[in-house]
Amino acid sequence: MRFLGKGTVVFDEKPSIKSFAAVVGKKEGEGPYGKCFDAVEEDAYFGQKTWEKAESENLRRSVQLALEKGSFEEKDIDFSISGDLLNQCISSGYALRGLDIPFFGVYGACSTMAESLVLGSVITGGGAAKNILCSTSSHFCSAEKQFRTPLEYGGQRTPNAQWTVTGSGALVVGEGSAPPYVEAVTCGRIVDLGVTDIGNMGAAMAPAFVDTVKRHLETLGREAQYYDLILSGDLGIIGKSLAKELFAKEGIDIGDKYDDCGAMIFDKETQDTHAGGSGCGCAASILCGHILPEMKKGNLRRVLFAATGALMSPTATFQGESIPSISHAVSLEA
Amino acid sequence: MRFLGKGTVVFDEKPSIKSFAAVVGKKEGEGPYGKCFDAVEEDAYFGQKTWEKAESENLRRSVQLALEKGSFEEKDIDFSISGDLLNQCISSGYALRGLDIPFFGVYGACSTMAESLVLGSVITGGGAAKNILCSTSSHFCSAEKQFRTPLEYGGQRTPNAQWTVTGSGALVVGEGSAPPYVEAVTCGRIVDLGVTDIGNMGAAMAPAFVDTVKRHLETLGREAQYYDLILSGDLGIIGKSLAKELFAKEGIDIGDKYDDCGAMIFDKETQDTHAGGSGCGCAASILCGHILPEMKKGNLRRVLFAATGALMSPTATFQGESIPSISHAVSLEA
Repeated sequence: MRFLGKGTVVFDEKPSIKSFAAVVGKKEGEGPYGKCFDAVEEDAYFGQKTWEKAESENLRRSVQLALEKGSFEEKDIDFSISGDLLNQCISSGYALRGLDIPFFGVYGACSTMAESLVLGSVITGGGAAKNILCSTSSHFCSAEKQFRTPLEYGGQRTPNAQWTVTGSGALVVGEGSAPPYVEAVTCGRIVDLGVTDIGNMGAAMAPAFVDTVKRHLETLGREAQYYDLILSGDLGIIGKSLAKELFAKEGIDIGDKYDDCGAMIFDKETQDTHAGGSGCGCAASILCGHILPEMKKGNLRRVLFAATGALMSPTATFQGESIPSISHAVSLEA
Repeated sequence: MRFLGKGTVVFDEKPSIKSFAAVVGKKEGEGPYGKCFDAVEEDAYFGQKTWEKAESENLRRSVQLALEKGSFEEKDIDFSISGDLLNQCISSGYALRGLDIPFFGVYGACSTMAESLVLGSVITGGGAAKNILCSTSSHFCSAEKQFRTPLEYGGQRTPNAQWTVTGSGALVVGEGSAPPYVEAVTCGRIVDLGVTDIGNMGAAMAPAFVDTVKRHLETLGREAQYYDLILSGDLGIIGKSLAKELFAKEGIDIGDKYDDCGAMIFDKETQDTHAGGSGCGCAASILCGHILPEMKKGNLRRVLFAATGALMSPTATFQGESIPSISHAVSLEA
C-alpha cells in the first residue's frame, strides 16, 4: 500500500471484493436493472411496522446475503463499516447490532458505499484485518419523511427532484486472490460551491464528484480513458449533465465512459422519477447488483466508482446554509 | 501493525499524537478541569446565530488550534476524520468544509473521539498517511433541542439525566517519535441489553464499555492494573457505578484505576448537572485538555481511553426501540 498524497492510496497487494449482495424495493425491481439484484421485496415495509425499521431490515438482508454468498460466518469478519442517511444512522446501528462484529459507523450521506469501501480497503490493505464488511441503505419513505414531507401530505415533486432508492448493498473486502479487486482509492474533500436548493442535489454534488475524479486521475497520472466506466453515485440526470460540463471546463475528456447510478436505476420514460434516483442505496445497489457481477463475468475490466454525498441536514437548510458535498472514489479492477 | 482479532490491533511503530487542543463553553470552564482547556468561550453562541452553528464554530476553533499548536498547515494533513451527534453530522461537515483536506465522516455518537482515533491510528499505522486530524464536538443547546426539548420549554431534568458538554477536541495522529503514542486499539461491537430509558444513557452504554475493555484486556493478555487509568467516555456518575458492578461480575479487578469523563468534567456539588456530563465533546475535551497534556508531562504513563456512544435516535426511541451502544478503546502510552 502506497500513499500518493491528495487522498489517494494505491495497493500493491490489491484487496479483493470477495462477496456482495443487493436487496431493493418493488420500484427498483421494475427498473432497467431489476433483474440484477439478489432480491426484490414487494412489501415497502419489509414486514416491519415503520419506514425506519423497513430500511434497517432491508440492510440486514443484504448483509446476511453477502455473508452467505461468500460462505462467511460472523467470526470470519474482522470489522463492519456502515452508515446511512437517517438521523444518528439508525438503519445501520439497528441492522448490525445483532452481529458479533466490531463496528465502525460512518457518515458520508449518499457517498457511504464508496467511503466504507475506501476505509475497508485501506484497513485491510494495511494489514489490520483479513475481511471487512461494508454496507449501506436508503428507503424512499424514510427519506421523504425525514428530509422532505410525510408521504401522506402528497407534496408535489419539482422536475429536478430525485427519487430516493429503496435499496441496500453489502460487500466483503479483504485479502484474496480473485477479482474484482480494489486497485486504488481516493478520499474526497468537502466541496461547497454555494448551492442552496435542496431540490437540486445533483447540482450541489457534481462539483465534488469532478473534484475527486480530477485529483484521482492527476495523482495517478491517468486519462479518463484508462477506465471502461467512471460512475458517479447519484447525481441523477441533471447532475450528470452538469458533471459533463464541469469535466469539459477542467479539460478532462470523459468521452462516453461516464454514467451515473441515479440516472441508471429508474426508467426515465416510464417510472416518473423526474431527475432519477438518489440515496445511499442507489450507488450501493448498482455497485453490488450490477457493476461487481459484470466485473466478475469479465464484461467490465476497469471501473472508477465514485459515489457522491450531500452533507447538509434539513436544519442547516432552514438556517440558510448551502450544501457541502463530498465524493470518494474506488478504482476497481478485474 | 499486527491484527490480534476481536477488533484489536497493536502497533510496532506506534503512531504519535503530535498535537491536540480542546475548546469548551463557560460552564465547562467553571468545572474542575476548567483551567486545562485551550480556550473557554463565554458566549454560548460562539458568535453565531444558531446553536448548530455555535457547535460547528467551537469545533472549527479546536481544529484550528490543534493545527497551529503542531505548526501544521492544511497540506501537511493527509486525512481528516470527524463526526458528531447532530443529524447528518452537520457540526463536522460545516466546520471542516473550509479545509482542503480529504475527509472521512464518522458516526459513533459520543464514542466519536475514540472511533476517529482508532481509525486514524490504523490508517497511519498501515502506512496510508503521515498525519491525520481527528476531531469531534457537542453543544448543550443543540443537543437539548434535537434530543430532548427546546430550552425555552424549561423541561424538568430527571436525577439520572446527564448534561451535554459544550466542547470540542481535535488532535493530529501520525508518524512520529514523541509521546504520547497510540500503542494498541480495540474497535467495539454493538451491545444492546434492552435499556429503553433515554434519560439513563449511562445504563445503556456501560455494558458496551465493559465489553470492549474486557476484550481488549483478554486479547492483549493484560490485567486492568497494566494501566494507570482506564477512562470511559461519558457514562456519568450512575453509569460509572454500573460499570464497576459489571467489571466485578466479569471478574475484572478494576481497583482505583477507573474514572469516567462524564463524572469528571462537572463539579457534582456545585454545578447541578445531576448524573454528570455527556456528548462527543465530553470525552474529546477531557482527552485533549487533560489526559494528553498529563501524559506529555509524564504524570500518566499508560491510559486506556474508551469513549462510549449510544446509537439510538429520538425516532427509534419513539418507536419503542432499545438503545444499542458501542465503545472503542485506545491504549495510550507516554
